[in-house]
Amino acid sequence: MKALSVNRVLAIKVPRGSDLGKYITKLAIEQGIKTGIVTVIGSLVDPVIGYYDKEQDKYLEIELKGVYELVSGLGNISLKNGSPMLHLHVALGDRGGRLYGGHFIRGAVFVAEAFIMELKGEPISRKQVSNTLWLWDL
Amino acid sequence: MKALSVNRVLAIKVPRGSDLGKYITKLAIEQGIKTGIVTVIGSLVDPVIGYYDKEQDKYLEIELKGVYELVSGLGNISLKNGSPMLHLHVALGDRGGRLYGGHFIRGAVFVAEAFIMELKGEPISRKQVSNTLWLWDL
Amino acid sequence: MKALSVNRVLAIKVPRGSDLGKYITKLAIEQGIKTGIVTVIGSLVDPVIGYYDKEQDKYLEIELKGVYELVSGLGNISLKNGSPMLHLHVALGDRGGRLYGGHFIRGAVFVAEAFIMELKGEPISRKQVSNTLWLWDL
Repeated sequence: MKALSVNRVLAIKVPRGSDLGKYITKLAIEQGIKTGIVTVIGSLVDPVIGYYDKEQDKYLEIELKGVYELVSGLGNISLKNGSPMLHLHVALGDRGGRLYGGHFIRGAVFVAEAFIMELKGEPISRKQVSNTLWLWDL
Repeated sequence: MKALSVNRVLAIKVPRGSDLGKYITKLAIEQGIKTGIVTVIGSLVDPVIGYYDKEQDKYLEIELKGVYELVSGLGNISLKNGSPMLHLHVALGDRGGRLYGGHFIRGAVFVAEAFIMELKGEPISRKQVSNTLWLWDL
Repeated sequence: MKALSVNRVLAIKVPRGSDLGKYITKLAIEQGIKTGIVTVIGSLVDPVIGYYDKEQDKYLEIELKGVYELVSGLGNISLKNGSPMLHLHVALGDRGGRLYGGHFIRGAVFVAEAFIMELKGEPISRKQVSNTLWLWDL
């Protein structure tokens, strides 16, 4: 466990067409955010989500086609090899209101209203525990 | 992008039978909250959710009947025409644990435990970009 | 309604194999957290979720088997009989990306990255309103 405190809260309108993850990561790097809590709602085009298969130690990719409501995006920023890394899980709704979700891999933004709550104190770093997994080193 | 900081955190028990969105919006107006992050869990009766259809530029309404667990309510408050507006996305669980979700349109509260994290700094305003969509003006 | 403010933010890596709810509750007790906002992502093994049936005044239990992505965990800590209690709702994704969710009852952690945002001010307490339900006393 690590006790931190809240610093800035960045409100971010991710531009249409940008990859949600790449954009937030780039902004975190530019702003020097080492540790933070991320929340986002909006809608995504052709999102790809992952399910971690522990036998194979890899993410199975689930490719969704079309526009999905981004019902919840919840995650964090911490350091991987000293650089800010976004870990985000998403719930996505289709036009019938059915939800799909998992580990966010990629997806183009149609609309995205995101917050990064920057945490100050000793940053959280990740360490590699398998080929695929980098977990918090707490 | 806009850098803000956290002010008050309002903990709200929405009364049974109230519309979730109307109640939170009214309280935000009364409390003078111009920008904030909203989270809520609980359960809703006969919730109606929307899927934004970009060809028609309107929300398709999905009407759910009965009581649903409000598994996640995530969103924000910002200004529309100078007045606080709630933008909320919800995930809703039926008695079999299946999830539905989208843009919150309306729904009566059975139980709702909500937080508004008020953000201080220059408020976020929305501007109209189509008949239906009002997006953050950042 | 109660106006609070943010104190510490605890970042928690829940150990593999621990019950998510028991671990967070124990930590809240140890840290003296009376009121807080909880968010968590990761993955859970054999999670059990509940749907509150108001006619029977009890949670119907939905037992999921295997490993599920913990797509969103959202909830709070408040006091029940003077002791910190976790109220958490979860959305869980299977290997096909389908989502299930409801009131978190139990589930072993495979990975869990959690935050407790401690709130200071007058704590929130719960009071019993039926055999099963303990609601915020605001």
